[in-house]
Amino acid sequence: MSATELLQSYSKKLEPLLCRYLDSKAEEAEKISSACWDMLLRIKNFTMRGGKRIRPAFIYYGYKCFRQDYEEEVVFASMCVELLHSYLLIHDDIMDEDEFRRGCMTMHADYANAHIAAESQSRASFGNAMATIAGDVASALGIDAIAASNFPPDRKIKAIIKLCEIEVNVCHGQALDVLSSYRNDCREEDTALINTLKTACYTVEGPLQLGGILAGAPDKQLSAFSDYAIPLGQAFQIQDDILGLYGDQKQTGKPIGSDLKEGKKTFLILNSLKRATSEQRNIINNALGNPELEPEHIAIVRSIVEETGALEYSRNTAKLMVEQAKSALPKDLEPDGRDFLLAIADYVVNRNN
Amino acid sequence: MSATELLQSYSKKLEPLLCRYLDSKAEEAEKISSACWDMLLRIKNFTMRGGKRIRPAFIYYGYKCFRQDYEEEVVFASMCVELLHSYLLIHDDIMDEDEFRRGCMTMHADYANAHIAAESQSRASFGNAMATIAGDVASALGIDAIAASNFPPDRKIKAIIKLCEIEVNVCHGQALDVLSSYRNDCREEDTALINTLKTACYTVEGPLQLGGILAGAPDKQLSAFSDYAIPLGQAFQIQDDILGLYGDQKQTGKPIGSDLKEGKKTFLILNSLKRATSEQRNIINNALGNPELEPEHIAIVRSIVEETGALEYSRNTAKLMVEQAKSALPKDLEPDGRDFLLAIADYVVNRNN
Repeated sequence: MSATELLQSYSKKLEPLLCRYLDSKAEEAEKISSACWDMLLRIKNFTMRGGKRIRPAFIYYGYKCFRQDYEEEVVFASMCVELLHSYLLIHDDIMDEDEFRRGCMTMHADYANAHIAAESQSRASFGNAMATIAGDVASALGIDAIAASNFPPDRKIKAIIKLCEIEVNVCHGQALDVLSSYRNDCREEDTALINTLKTACYTVEGPLQLGGILAGAPDKQLSAFSDYAIPLGQAFQIQDDILGLYGDQKQTGKPIGSDLKEGKKTFLILNSLKRATSEQRNIINNALGNPELEPEHIAIVRSIVEETGALEYSRNTAKLMVEQAKSALPKDLEPDGRDFLLAIADYVVNRNN
Repeated sequence: MSATELLQSYSKKLEPLLCRYLDSKAEEAEKISSACWDMLLRIKNFTMRGGKRIRPAFIYYGYKCFRQDYEEEVVFASMCVELLHSYLLIHDDIMDEDEFRRGCMTMHADYANAHIAAESQSRASFGNAMATIAGDVASALGIDAIAASNFPPDRKIKAIIKLCEIEVNVCHGQALDVLSSYRNDCREEDTALINTLKTACYTVEGPLQLGGILAGAPDKQLSAFSDYAIPLGQAFQIQDDILGLYGDQKQTGKPIGSDLKEGKKTFLILNSLKRATSEQRNIINNALGNPELEPEHIAIVRSIVEETGALEYSRNTAKLMVEQAKSALPKDLEPDGRDFLLAIADYVVNRNN
């Protein structure tokens, strides 16, 4: 099966459980009040509406690298990172003041719209407050999903400690990202560190290790996962940066050029700046962090990134990292898990969403 | 020993562990970058600078109701609710746009001030973003504190599930609180529900049950704690409302009248409105939700609350609830724990901070 098919086959197992879990939490909330029930439904809709489920899939197939039993239990526990992801996206969208996510309204924008106040500042404050709380609820549910899963307690404790570590590290990545978008002196190593924390550790390494922990894999094999996960995560981020500028909004679900508007110094942009003429550099620098950027300006930046060779260089770098990841994968893993990890590595740089 | 002495004796055990734990997390963060280290230090300063430690004390003495061994372990695990509290306060302060907390700047105001941007909107966004993240980090550390404590894994899992439930419920309370401050039709039962979720369950019942869970107490005894905790928590909130209007800012660390300015319909205010003349009612309604409220206006509201008899009624209600709580306490608890629970019940309505 291809990576897409393997992802879909896993999603079909995940989504009914995720749906049922959030429904049961909504039922509990309904006993408190209809507003609490409404918040849980919003978290459910936000979580169900999208994403490739790549992070929980890494838990599932990471687990499959070591054992094949307790199938439903590992799918249940794998919800933890999807709920963590909802929580982080909800909070990130507030910070970035984004209105759209996964082709729909962001949590805070949706709450702001639901509010009856005429005054827009009051609506925005309301939306931000309710979405901050919704994110906080999703965060607690993520931990609960592991704690309530049917694995031996000592393994669940080890997984929860890992999940907390993942959460702290992705928060550090987000803090550095916020800091860098408010500063002008962002360097390549800053971007690399942010990508390691926000993508490599969070999207690949952490979930894979969670899968290994739930399978009871020894620590040595957990750290072997890192040599695969870190370069793959870096490649994943580079591909994300490329899709952010060259992708199709209908497929990515994210407005083209939003990284530019937010002033994000991606690997792609930093590399373009390094290769650009001073005139080209001015154009890019003026585009960075300009929230009013028009499509024609984005098109100009796009052509500069191509002309300088930064696009090709970034694509090649991502491909090299994928090869590095694949060759670092231990040979003695179970084929059900290992085959996915090899397939997903290629998918990471070939995907268009 | 008096409740204050028992609280202090516990705090002396908690604070060195809390300090050491946050220092060790700051050391880990320093390996990532100085900005991450700085964030951990801010969380540490925020957490160390204040509070009565009443929530973790309920874990400690709730545990002492059943057993006396593993003293240091339970103090370590009890950090969880103090970190949860830091996280919730940091996020609440953003929502309420408060600048001061515990006599110092709030997390977001402090971050906003540290930012070099000249433009105040940009500083505020930066402060809010960094404080949201700092709160998220504190949340993960709260879970980690239980997971890393030295109790049997099955007990820790039960405690973590309870902590997640506490977190979800306090978030629901906060959501209802935000909703009520944006609406004009808040009723007494809404306020009662918010107080149950935000104070009774969160401050008293939840921590007590966590202590019982860590001690391995049977479920029947955990639910017996509720009959003590719920009325005591309600009384705690009424006293908080009274201190918010009649307290000494130097002792409470919170500006007098801030509940009024935020439009909070406390038990005290709702009861005043019920008893007030239409003229008095207008004065209170005009004060509610007015952020520009002057000290002389607050003084007028204060005298109305006294004149209507709402102050005396609220004080008496709180005292009755305290008696109800005390009489609901099971007789067969260990004296070390039980004596604290009796003493703290009286303290709740006699405290001035």
